[in-house]
Amino acid sequence: EPTMNHEVERRRVENTAMEFWFYLRNKLQKLKDKTGGKSDVGVEIDTIIQDSTAYQKTLYKDFWKLRTVDGLEKWRQKEADSLGKLVQARFHFLQNPSDCSTAKKIVCNLSKGCGYGCQLHHLVYCMMVGYALDRTLILESKGWRYAAAGWESVFRPLSDTCMERSGRESVHWGAPDRIKDVQVVEMPIIDSLHPRPDYLPLSIPKDISERLIRVNGDPSSWWIGQFVQYLTRPQPHLQKDLDRAQKKLGFSNPCVGVHVRRTDKLAAEAAYHSVDEYMRYVAEYFDKLEMIQEVPERKVFLASDDPSVLPEAKKNYPDYTFISDPSVTLSAGLNKRYTDESLRGVILDIHFLSLCDYLVCTFSSQVCRVAYEKMQTMHGDPSANFKSLDDIYYFGGQNGHYVEVVEEHVKRNSKEIDMEPGDLIGIAGNHWDGNSKGMNRRTGKTGLFPSYKTQNKLTIVDLPEYPEAKVDR
Amino acid sequence: EPTMNHEVERRRVENTAMEFWFYLRNKLQKLKDKTGGKSDVGVEIDTIIQDSTAYQKTLYKDFWKLRTVDGLEKWRQKEADSLGKLVQARFHFLQNPSDCSTAKKIVCNLSKGCGYGCQLHHLVYCMMVGYALDRTLILESKGWRYAAAGWESVFRPLSDTCMERSGRESVHWGAPDRIKDVQVVEMPIIDSLHPRPDYLPLSIPKDISERLIRVNGDPSSWWIGQFVQYLTRPQPHLQKDLDRAQKKLGFSNPCVGVHVRRTDKLAAEAAYHSVDEYMRYVAEYFDKLEMIQEVPERKVFLASDDPSVLPEAKKNYPDYTFISDPSVTLSAGLNKRYTDESLRGVILDIHFLSLCDYLVCTFSSQVCRVAYEKMQTMHGDPSANFKSLDDIYYFGGQNGHYVEVVEEHVKRNSKEIDMEPGDLIGIAGNHWDGNSKGMNRRTGKTGLFPSYKTQNKLTIVDLPEYPEAKVDR
Ligand SMILES: Nc1nc2c(ncn2[C@@H]2O[C@H](COP(=O)(O)OP(=O)(O)O)[C@@H](O)[C@H]2O)c(=O)[nH]1
Ligand SMILES: Nc1nc2c(ncn2[C@@H]2O[C@H](COP(=O)(O)OP(=O)(O)O)[C@@H](O)[C@H]2O)c(=O)[nH]1
Repeated sequence: EPTMNHEVERRRVENTAMEFWFYLRNKLQKLKDKTGGKSDVGVEIDTIIQDSTAYQKTLYKDFWKLRTVDGLEKWRQKEADSLGKLVQARFHFLQNPSDCSTAKKIVCNLSKGCGYGCQLHHLVYCMMVGYALDRTLILESKGWRYAAAGWESVFRPLSDTCMERSGRESVHWGAPDRIKDVQVVEMPIIDSLHPRPDYLPLSIPKDISERLIRVNGDPSSWWIGQFVQYLTRPQPHLQKDLDRAQKKLGFSNPCVGVHVRRTDKLAAEAAYHSVDEYMRYVAEYFDKLEMIQEVPERKVFLASDDPSVLPEAKKNYPDYTFISDPSVTLSAGLNKRYTDESLRGVILDIHFLSLCDYLVCTFSSQVCRVAYEKMQTMHGDPSANFKSLDDIYYFGGQNGHYVEVVEEHVKRNSKEIDMEPGDLIGIAGNHWDGNSKGMNRRTGKTGLFPSYKTQNKLTIVDLPEYPEAKVDR
Repeated sequence: EPTMNHEVERRRVENTAMEFWFYLRNKLQKLKDKTGGKSDVGVEIDTIIQDSTAYQKTLYKDFWKLRTVDGLEKWRQKEADSLGKLVQARFHFLQNPSDCSTAKKIVCNLSKGCGYGCQLHHLVYCMMVGYALDRTLILESKGWRYAAAGWESVFRPLSDTCMERSGRESVHWGAPDRIKDVQVVEMPIIDSLHPRPDYLPLSIPKDISERLIRVNGDPSSWWIGQFVQYLTRPQPHLQKDLDRAQKKLGFSNPCVGVHVRRTDKLAAEAAYHSVDEYMRYVAEYFDKLEMIQEVPERKVFLASDDPSVLPEAKKNYPDYTFISDPSVTLSAGLNKRYTDESLRGVILDIHFLSLCDYLVCTFSSQVCRVAYEKMQTMHGDPSANFKSLDDIYYFGGQNGHYVEVVEEHVKRNSKEIDMEPGDLIGIAGNHWDGNSKGMNRRTGKTGLFPSYKTQNKLTIVDLPEYPEAKVDR
């Protein structure tokens, strides 16, 4: 069994090698375009790109072997499962107080005017606050835009014993000493939260931090994924529905989950990405996967709110098997979006996306981020098994996300920023070409910098440990 | 503590990453030369080379961290030492039979008409055969060209109890059943050996193979180094001399050992390499070293048989501190080569070369190979701490050295060869540009192939285990 430090260093090497490849591929591609593919130099650069791609595939295999040698992947899977069970037991304990009439509570509702992923994340944030303050989350979901009957029409109730907001007094969120002794606290949406505690995403709890950092390369999304998992435990009829759908669609692993977010999202929030762009990374993943196992069929689970995507993908990529339910896609259209059918659809899509081995999507979409979060709780360490065409992973309304500088950088042009070891950079994005963008907290300057000269900075917070929670139930 | 498999995989990743860099650097450099350094494209390629070099330095640091995390380097050092002690104890036991008059022996002399390194390797081969056959090595060295008084004028005798060849019968080397029961066997030089047993270099003994493969990336040279170490245990006066020289020269770590072999070697056996060529790799190593520790002074221990090398190096590389004894270099000249003074010189030079952290030399020279072998027995795992300007490591007269194909290769031009996984390629050399040269045993074809698609194939042989040898003495 590897130590935490070993795993951190191992992932670090992989990351540097990956960032180098992002950098190199981008530079060579640009140079090729500049010189013209047909010129002597252009042809030579093309050869270098192709040879380098082959080296990268072998490197992928070699890193995979190092990660899985001596059955380590089994250990990782077991350890991640066991940690997940511990956390779920704590949630169960917290949500089932012995006396609901005296239990401390926080109350949230689903009136946030946004989509399913966005609303689910609202609940995640509420329950995370509840976890930090030892308060049971009371969810008020009647009249929900997706299902008037409420959350429990599809998911199991958050508690067996305590679903009522009733309590001696209730206040809106406020300063710690003002809310501390009040039995019921009502939560605003995260964007209006004031004051903001340090245990909001992307923080992780200290008492499980070592185990968590050891098994997962993205502990923050694993922790969020645990809340997602608890909140979306399917009702028996939904579970049956999911199982039936799995058979009907012919879903099986290995597969790549592709989420193409279009329609309303393109108005202001995200850019258009062609099917080809998604498929480039699907192909890349399968090319690598073939280095470590037989891939008899290149299966792609395709989710989208745009009905034109599936036919286009099928037509242009006949070597791939696309799994998708067109009626689900149709139900995701704006005209049908807030219906029971559409709710079932997005639950199904997220379910299958998260069951895939690899995700290609845009992290600007909460659908995709929820799928990624769920994925973390299910496999060994799938933290690197994704390709986002736009943002890096984030949680809407999160506290500052920083990377720490590990190597000096002297800016080479007006777009870049200077960095010194130890500087904290508020990270705004990764251009996936070797560079990230961010704001140096020391200098106040915003700009580009080479991603490999930094490392992720985790916020680790002291939270209750719920020792009374029983794991074996 | 890492497992053997883990260490093998870890080194494998490092090796693939290194081969990729060899490949890339070479290709980009050539492309730059072709386009002309001043052109738009040339300037851009130069930027890519420089950025990539920076990535490589970080990758070096990251790999180093992975290798040394949790104090692993200390463990490695301890384990390598303990394995070395075990082997030395076995040698001591083998060389000190309780009754010399009945002990089985092999006899070797130093009449092989070649230099010190070559003669030392002759003894290594003899003693290795002795180890395999449970025979004490009797060395007849009176009239040695380097010191007429013999081996013991500088090195401790190979035995305290048994230095005489006397025995009931003696024969020349031959078929196993012919020599099996004969008390004394006389050994020819390795080039005339017939039949050739499988336990010649580059084989390693099975009973220590797992431990050895676990701690050292080049087990074959470690095993040879153990014989070198036993054979060259200094007499007290030589030890004092070495200690005095160390003080006088101001030798200390970190340092890079550079061996520049010139004079007679250039006539037929090796090509000329300029001081600049050696220094390029010295600089590269120090650049990397600075990623992991402070380097207050760039120390180079310089050994050569050409007196013009030191002044040239000093003049052109004022930022480096060169440690070298010009009188030793002079004594290595052909006119003085076979003298007591020259012997002392080459012993000193090899001693300090092997004490360095990194070696830059030509593996075509036995002086450099002996230094490399000695180095293996002294540090944790220094198997990758060298840059040879010509050959890969070998032992003169060795059995076939093969690499095993791990990835298919389809030849892309007439210089290359086809390979299928499992093929054995007799390896002739590494061009250090991503390609190696060799002969595919399956197809009989000789040519180039990408080194990273192969891995070293060790010969592991069953040898006596000398359980009676006592380690704590
Ligand atoms: N079934 C399904 N619904 C989708 C898909 N993409 C978007 N939707 C619908 O559009 C909503 C988008 O809102 P939200 O979940 O907040 O995600 P975002 O707007 O993409 O960040 C989802 O909740 C779904 O109702 C999809 O691929 N499949
Ligand atoms: N002191 C000293 N002697 C050297 C050096 N290079 C070569 N020689 C002498 O030249 C001999 C070369 O013969 P050998 O050891 O078989 O190595 P090779 O000929 O380089 O493969 C050495 O044994 C030394 O006597 C050097 O750098 N220092």
